[in-house]
Amino acid sequence: MGDAPLPAEHVLIVFYMHMPEPLQEEFRRKFAGARVTIHKSEPGKPVPPELYQSATVLVTFTDLPDPKDATNLKFIHSFSAGLDHLMQHPILRETDIPITTSSGIHGPPIAEWTVMNWLVSSRQYVKTYEAQKAHVWADKSQFMHGLHDQVGKKVGILGYGSIGRQIARVSIALGMTVYAHTASPRTTEESRRDTHYIVPGTGDPDGSIPVSWHHGTDRESIRSFLALGLDHLVISLPLTPETTYLLGPEEFAILSDNCHHHATKPYVTNISRGKVIDQKALIEALKSGVLGGAALDVTDPEPLPKDNPLWDAPNVQISPHMSSLGNEYWPRSIDIAVLNLGRLQRGEPLVNAYNRRRGY
Amino acid sequence: MGDAPLPAEHVLIVFYMHMPEPLQEEFRRKFAGARVTIHKSEPGKPVPPELYQSATVLVTFTDLPDPKDATNLKFIHSFSAGLDHLMQHPILRETDIPITTSSGIHGPPIAEWTVMNWLVSSRQYVKTYEAQKAHVWADKSQFMHGLHDQVGKKVGILGYGSIGRQIARVSIALGMTVYAHTASPRTTEESRRDTHYIVPGTGDPDGSIPVSWHHGTDRESIRSFLALGLDHLVISLPLTPETTYLLGPEEFAILSDNCHHHATKPYVTNISRGKVIDQKALIEALKSGVLGGAALDVTDPEPLPKDNPLWDAPNVQISPHMSSLGNEYWPRSIDIAVLNLGRLQRGEPLVNAYNRRRGY
Repeated sequence: MGDAPLPAEHVLIVFYMHMPEPLQEEFRRKFAGARVTIHKSEPGKPVPPELYQSATVLVTFTDLPDPKDATNLKFIHSFSAGLDHLMQHPILRETDIPITTSSGIHGPPIAEWTVMNWLVSSRQYVKTYEAQKAHVWADKSQFMHGLHDQVGKKVGILGYGSIGRQIARVSIALGMTVYAHTASPRTTEESRRDTHYIVPGTGDPDGSIPVSWHHGTDRESIRSFLALGLDHLVISLPLTPETTYLLGPEEFAILSDNCHHHATKPYVTNISRGKVIDQKALIEALKSGVLGGAALDVTDPEPLPKDNPLWDAPNVQISPHMSSLGNEYWPRSIDIAVLNLGRLQRGEPLVNAYNRRRGY
Repeated sequence: MGDAPLPAEHVLIVFYMHMPEPLQEEFRRKFAGARVTIHKSEPGKPVPPELYQSATVLVTFTDLPDPKDATNLKFIHSFSAGLDHLMQHPILRETDIPITTSSGIHGPPIAEWTVMNWLVSSRQYVKTYEAQKAHVWADKSQFMHGLHDQVGKKVGILGYGSIGRQIARVSIALGMTVYAHTASPRTTEESRRDTHYIVPGTGDPDGSIPVSWHHGTDRESIRSFLALGLDHLVISLPLTPETTYLLGPEEFAILSDNCHHHATKPYVTNISRGKVIDQKALIEALKSGVLGGAALDVTDPEPLPKDNPLWDAPNVQISPHMSSLGNEYWPRSIDIAVLNLGRLQRGEPLVNAYNRRRGY
């Protein structure tokens, strides 16, 4: 990924757990030519100031130097997609050292998690899995009716960022139609572009996939979006006061009443935050058949208590807030740092640059 | 789907089981304007000749009339993709009534089944499924390493028909690279086109998705294909004397030794016939880690006996030859019949027309 050799650079990577050796080697390879120090931080124990002082590039999750130790730092790259947890740090408040985020790297894993859950549900994977465990060659007539595929299905994506865009990309490959909903209007071609880091070969860089774009943060705009005849609703928006309990009994009813397929009821996928959904209403909608199923990587609260009725709601698939995780997470974040180091050296604008004035 | 009203047509649909009412209604809707008779055939009991005699269009699975009763038949549409089971019937041997097949309708369901199995394996779905059954919010650190995604992975598809093409379409949406292998050379643009029925919005009609095309039926051509550095091998070719036990210990070793990823070993998907694989060698390759996993909709033999060691081979996912099944199967086949009825009326060539001289 690197452009020229980087003999003058000292890249400091600070991480809170031990990085497996192959991963460390991969990081060093990516920063070919630079001196790379990988430091495991200990809770309550600051990173040695001399490490910070000699670093020209810092890649970190939560550890940041005192501004007086950031004497050689050309830029800081964060392993996180957002910097909310670091906003009050003096490095952000008192310096203008460029900071870049890992925004964009979650698209592929979370899209795969989403599509996997759709298919596991619609193709009744669990039936064959349980039959295999019992060494039973199941009677195939039971798969003739009930199983269905995604061709011609409509998916509405609330929040069309890097995750929503990669879900959209896979959706149209499956023969589906995509509807996008964003907070602010996206009426121009320019405004529909993805300006964040994009994992090569993925996403919807131009925003050309949706058949229509919708917007608004008020309940009415959401409700008219839900009335589009969707088979799938994907919730991929941030938790804010406006989006808290955004989806309740009436929203599920609107979604259901307008669903354009007779045989299947709408399927809800939540990869945002548990509190975007009124969870009791969701359980009720699943039980009464208003909704056909749900894939939830997030719940309210987390961890979900053992006796919570959500665990056993019909056709619900729950995972413990892990949809973005996997081998690729850290290397992909490092790719952005390597890319930006090259851009910095060539005097080009950085990708995923944090804007201190805007706050994101 | 129909073009003009069809008052003069009598469409006879013969089927060996009871069609659910909503499906019967859907069929009648699709042939809007025509008289539609849906007849359930009984084993050993011929369809009443007078039904055959009045039909202008016959849609059938295995039941065919005596040529003397096919007096009004304009064409016959088969629910099957192939007609091997009907080749000796007098209707095929003694008449020239056009016959069309359901070739092409298997692409979407089998591609969904394939991609579902890839993701279930790579994203360790079963771990979250079992945790949910036990009402356990699993520790997310266990998902940080080991899980991986499909971006940048290479998939080789042996047999690039309607199924392979839809797998290819979804693969590139996931950020993968596709390599195609066919029996005969496909060196011209024309030869790479899909000439069968294509479910709208799916497949690779122009054959433009693969980064390279390979061909040959001899073992050497297959082996050089397996040496391309594939992460995935998809077997989607017919069982012939040449393809019987095509993949054995040496083929799996070639696949494994050349796999371009360090962390993951090649994954084999078989949606063809069990006997294309030397199953003992497959089990051995899975046990020894030469292969990373396998998704098998077909086994040798079928049904797979209860005590067969394949059931418990590491990272194998078995389903009972059902990957093509689902709600869409029959309506999609009917779509081809409706399409062809319109084409016949307009004097256009039929789609999926069986060629008696070629035998397919």
